[in-house]
Amino acid sequence: MKKKEATHSPLSTTVRVQVRFSEVDSINMVWHGHYIKYMEDAREAFGREYGLEYMTIYRNNYMAPVFDVKMRYHQTATVDDVLLVTIICRPVRGAKLVFDYEIRKESDNSLVLTAETTQLFTNLQGELEASCPEFLTEWKKKHQLC
Amino acid sequence: MKKKEATHSPLSTTVRVQVRFSEVDSINMVWHGHYIKYMEDAREAFGREYGLEYMTIYRNNYMAPVFDVKMRYHQTATVDDVLLVTIICRPVRGAKLVFDYEIRKESDNSLVLTAETTQLFTNLQGELEASCPEFLTEWKKKHQLC
Amino acid sequence: MKKKEATHSPLSTTVRVQVRFSEVDSINMVWHGHYIKYMEDAREAFGREYGLEYMTIYRNNYMAPVFDVKMRYHQTATVDDVLLVTIICRPVRGAKLVFDYEIRKESDNSLVLTAETTQLFTNLQGELEASCPEFLTEWKKKHQLC
Amino acid sequence: MKKKEATHSPLSTTVRVQVRFSEVDSINMVWHGHYIKYMEDAREAFGREYGLEYMTIYRNNYMAPVFDVKMRYHQTATVDDVLLVTIICRPVRGAKLVFDYEIRKESDNSLVLTAETTQLFTNLQGELEASCPEFLTEWKKKHQLC
Repeated sequence: MKKKEATHSPLSTTVRVQVRFSEVDSINMVWHGHYIKYMEDAREAFGREYGLEYMTIYRNNYMAPVFDVKMRYHQTATVDDVLLVTIICRPVRGAKLVFDYEIRKESDNSLVLTAETTQLFTNLQGELEASCPEFLTEWKKKHQLC
Repeated sequence: MKKKEATHSPLSTTVRVQVRFSEVDSINMVWHGHYIKYMEDAREAFGREYGLEYMTIYRNNYMAPVFDVKMRYHQTATVDDVLLVTIICRPVRGAKLVFDYEIRKESDNSLVLTAETTQLFTNLQGELEASCPEFLTEWKKKHQLC
Repeated sequence: MKKKEATHSPLSTTVRVQVRFSEVDSINMVWHGHYIKYMEDAREAFGREYGLEYMTIYRNNYMAPVFDVKMRYHQTATVDDVLLVTIICRPVRGAKLVFDYEIRKESDNSLVLTAETTQLFTNLQGELEASCPEFLTEWKKKHQLC
Repeated sequence: MKKKEATHSPLSTTVRVQVRFSEVDSINMVWHGHYIKYMEDAREAFGREYGLEYMTIYRNNYMAPVFDVKMRYHQTATVDDVLLVTIICRPVRGAKLVFDYEIRKESDNSLVLTAETTQLFTNLQGELEASCPEFLTEWKKKHQLC
């Protein structure tokens, strides 16, 4: 008898962000640096939804600074555009968190940006942790991410 | 014969700020909220010059949050404009700091913005201090500001 | 019998803003300059609700740059605080718009900031308009603001 | 006799950026999104130095939006740190610009961030240009970048 494969949907969440007037540049496009904020909005919403908030990490005596960011711009957005920012937690081993992002326009679902971030773990003195923090291992197990 | 009164020039400093591309809006003008950063640049340069840095205040067990901001916009600035941001410490009594600001274009010295900020003093728990902290009294005396 | 006087409530709207991690400073308080963005969020929501958007003004061949800002900070806000930003249009004569603002914490309705902004009108070349634009007079009449 | 190979140093420039108080987060580190501004500061300085400014591109009827950003964080920076942001133009063929970046602390020359950006070319309607704009080919030749 064939073992049923794990087909659970990936851990993800989506937030809605409305572009601010102060976020568009002189050619009326969202300045490319602002997307990092939108991505962080999604990451924090993810943390609230799945119990992996910045403060949760901190209370476990860790910090999770961003180590690596990759962004690709597919299309420009402009003032009053409503963006849907989706964040997906990638199943990875070890003392890190990797998220994938997709930003789309709410109006026509067209793709604006794809991105990924990698966070490493440090102790509260900022020293890198080589092995996976116990609370993180538990969190990953609970959500079938490792 | 009458004693000549102190006519020392006011305590002030000027910083040079170049407008960033990301700071102009869709009509190519500096977005009005960015001037608060330029003012803070001047305030921090003032602190470094006259020994009243954020960290000096903190080490004396105080914080000096901004309580009041007034800004008047006289002219717009645009990308690549170089601005001269002058900050002047107003002589005032009590547990507060009041600064006046003038922002001018370097190219023609024309006026862009006038502003003032008022900072109050709190202890490290954020509770307002009614009386003037001793280190502040000394600092004001040293600089003939009271 | 005396005719009941117009006691219509003032033209206002309220938006909900969640403080971002990137908006708090090193003492975990919202950096004081960010409130200008929150105020603009409310002003744009007001524009959408009452038909006085930035683009509406522009299509009438005017711009309405901010001329004057006054802000008073009553209390600090921190990360994840949800703020209610209320904007009220003050009835004023002539070629200007004056808005009052109140920012409160959603959790306990305590006051965080009060503010006001004044906008003047210019033509598309940026020259100040002395007399009230016709579309603005009509808009004010329609909403009993003059 | 062997022809001496071109060993000219790469086209690069370095700008000095002082971290602002408003740019550090609640754990006193520069918020990771701000580095994109520092990188743009360097890119604009590069443009001014080598005649490839935003406005030069625009006057040639092109825009050069950022298509791809990669950033790697090696160390954190904090308030009042002075950063040296070096930008290097990578020799590439075709209708694109690729820059490499290195950010170091002025105090000890330690590495803070490495990054790269890729810009593509569009016409003023925002449509992608497949072939290299003539002015860009000339600019690359002049600087021995292709």
